[in-house]
Amino acid sequence: MTIKPLADRVLIKMEEAEETTKSGIILAGSAKEKPQVADVIAVGPGGMVDGKEVVMNVKVGDRVITSQYAGTNVKMDGEEYTIVRQSDILAVVE
Amino acid sequence: MTIKPLADRVLIKMEEAEETTKSGIILAGSAKEKPQVADVIAVGPGGMVDGKEVVMNVKVGDRVITSQYAGTNVKMDGEEYTIVRQSDILAVVE
Amino acid sequence: MTIKPLADRVLIKMEEAEETTKSGIILAGSAKEKPQVADVIAVGPGGMVDGKEVVMNVKVGDRVITSQYAGTNVKMDGEEYTIVRQSDILAVVE
Amino acid sequence: MTIKPLADRVLIKMEEAEETTKSGIILAGSAKEKPQVADVIAVGPGGMVDGKEVVMNVKVGDRVITSQYAGTNVKMDGEEYTIVRQSDILAVVE
Amino acid sequence: MTIKPLADRVLIKMEEAEETTKSGIILAGSAKEKPQVADVIAVGPGGMVDGKEVVMNVKVGDRVITSQYAGTNVKMDGEEYTIVRQSDILAVVE
Amino acid sequence: MTIKPLADRVLIKMEEAEETTKSGIILAGSAKEKPQVADVIAVGPGGMVDGKEVVMNVKVGDRVITSQYAGTNVKMDGEEYTIVRQSDILAVVE
Amino acid sequence: MTIKPLADRVLIKMEEAEETTKSGIILAGSAKEKPQVADVIAVGPGGMVDGKEVVMNVKVGDRVITSQYAGTNVKMDGEEYTIVRQSDILAVVE
Repeated sequence: MTIKPLADRVLIKMEEAEETTKSGIILAGSAKEKPQVADVIAVGPGGMVDGKEVVMNVKVGDRVITSQYAGTNVKMDGEEYTIVRQSDILAVVE
Repeated sequence: MTIKPLADRVLIKMEEAEETTKSGIILAGSAKEKPQVADVIAVGPGGMVDGKEVVMNVKVGDRVITSQYAGTNVKMDGEEYTIVRQSDILAVVE
Repeated sequence: MTIKPLADRVLIKMEEAEETTKSGIILAGSAKEKPQVADVIAVGPGGMVDGKEVVMNVKVGDRVITSQYAGTNVKMDGEEYTIVRQSDILAVVE
Repeated sequence: MTIKPLADRVLIKMEEAEETTKSGIILAGSAKEKPQVADVIAVGPGGMVDGKEVVMNVKVGDRVITSQYAGTNVKMDGEEYTIVRQSDILAVVE
Repeated sequence: MTIKPLADRVLIKMEEAEETTKSGIILAGSAKEKPQVADVIAVGPGGMVDGKEVVMNVKVGDRVITSQYAGTNVKMDGEEYTIVRQSDILAVVE
Repeated sequence: MTIKPLADRVLIKMEEAEETTKSGIILAGSAKEKPQVADVIAVGPGGMVDGKEVVMNVKVGDRVITSQYAGTNVKMDGEEYTIVRQSDILAVVE
Repeated sequence: MTIKPLADRVLIKMEEAEETTKSGIILAGSAKEKPQVADVIAVGPGGMVDGKEVVMNVKVGDRVITSQYAGTNVKMDGEEYTIVRQSDILAVVE
């Protein structure tokens, strides 16, 4: 079973805080804020969104930093995912 | 009797929580939030909406995930439905 | 005497709750919410509205479902009507 | 002395409640709400308004229904008038 | 010394309440509201404003009616003026 | 060391209240409000700003009137400056 | 490991208050507000952002002044960075 994002949406999986820390990135803020480093699982097709052409610049497998509080949480087969708009993704980590 | 959505609107039927759970998707959040996995029952024609060209990407029979709180509830022939805009649909589940 | 809607506006007459129920549609929500199934009485010409081209897709005689709280109420010759924008009409019932 | 509306503005004169009632139209709502049936006294030239082309569809002498609370009140030579945008006019009464 | 308005701005001088009353126009509302009939003192060049082409339709010497509370007050050489956008001017009085 | 404004931004230096008063301009309002007459120190290049073409109409050396509270304050080499958007400048004083 | 900003985003590193003071720039405001002079570390590719073409005008190594409170903080390899939109950058310091 798979979730196929529509339009400019991207399915991401938040990294556990330990993974994020190990990789050298810590997102600033209080200890209670959930990490925002995530792995891209699926990418929508882009195209016309709100009457504007959107080209998708992230790809499956990218590690990304997202805006805090962005997106909708979904749990599938016991794993938790988030669906965000590409514009909520700030940067790619390499 | 049928409901034919106008413009970019989509008529969907929310799945019962049990169906959603059985299929492996659980929408995160408190137990009180209603499931957001739904079946597409009818799709509007798209076209010019607020002066912007909208192409409909979902089709009758799709299983979709929608934004929470989106849409207007309608009860027809004893069954409850919701009318949402296509942009309130986040992803298709396959 | 007639009311001729301007631009993208539509003159509708809300159905009594009994009619709505008899036809098999009940709009969900508390008992105090007024029915939203309505009959289209007159349709504006469309054209440029807020600088955007609007094509009218509903026609006189259509039964429609409207957004709750949409529009302005008018009483003419003892009958109550509502003037809504076409974009406040969600679907046509057939 | 005359008031010449600019752009998409329209100078209207609200009808007294008695006139409105006599003509068969009563605007719904509490008794305290002022009538919204009005006569068109002068019409602006239209043209580019907020960067959008506006064509004027009402003309001097039309009886119109306006949005409640729309416009600015002006008293000229002892008579009270209101200046509204054309988009605040919902319908023409014939 | 002169004030030259930029873009779509207009320098106006509010008339004293007595002048306004004498000319037959009284702006409705409580006695405490300041008059909104004003004389045009200087007019900006128009042109591109917020990416939209604006043509100036008022000219020096026009008597105009402005939206209440619009603009910024400036005192120059002992006289008080107001700088408004042309779109805040509702009508020209002739 | 110099500050070079980007896009449609303008670096200005607020005049002391005494200078402003001496030149015959007093900005209306309570005594506590800071003067808004300012000298233009540096001007951004204009160009595309928020997807709209902006042409810069003020130049270094202009005396201008700005919207109250507009801009960001910066202190450089002991002098205080403000960075505003050109659209926050209402008029040029000559 | 590097952070590659997407679209119109820019990765910056805020200067310590001492550096800022030494260079002659002090950002006005209360002592508790964090400095807003920053060094540009990485620049996104620009391109279509919200349906508008954005050209990047800052480059790696620029010293810039940013809007207060703009952006998202990220800590990487023990160093704290901020990701802002280019439009949040007010000026370049030379």
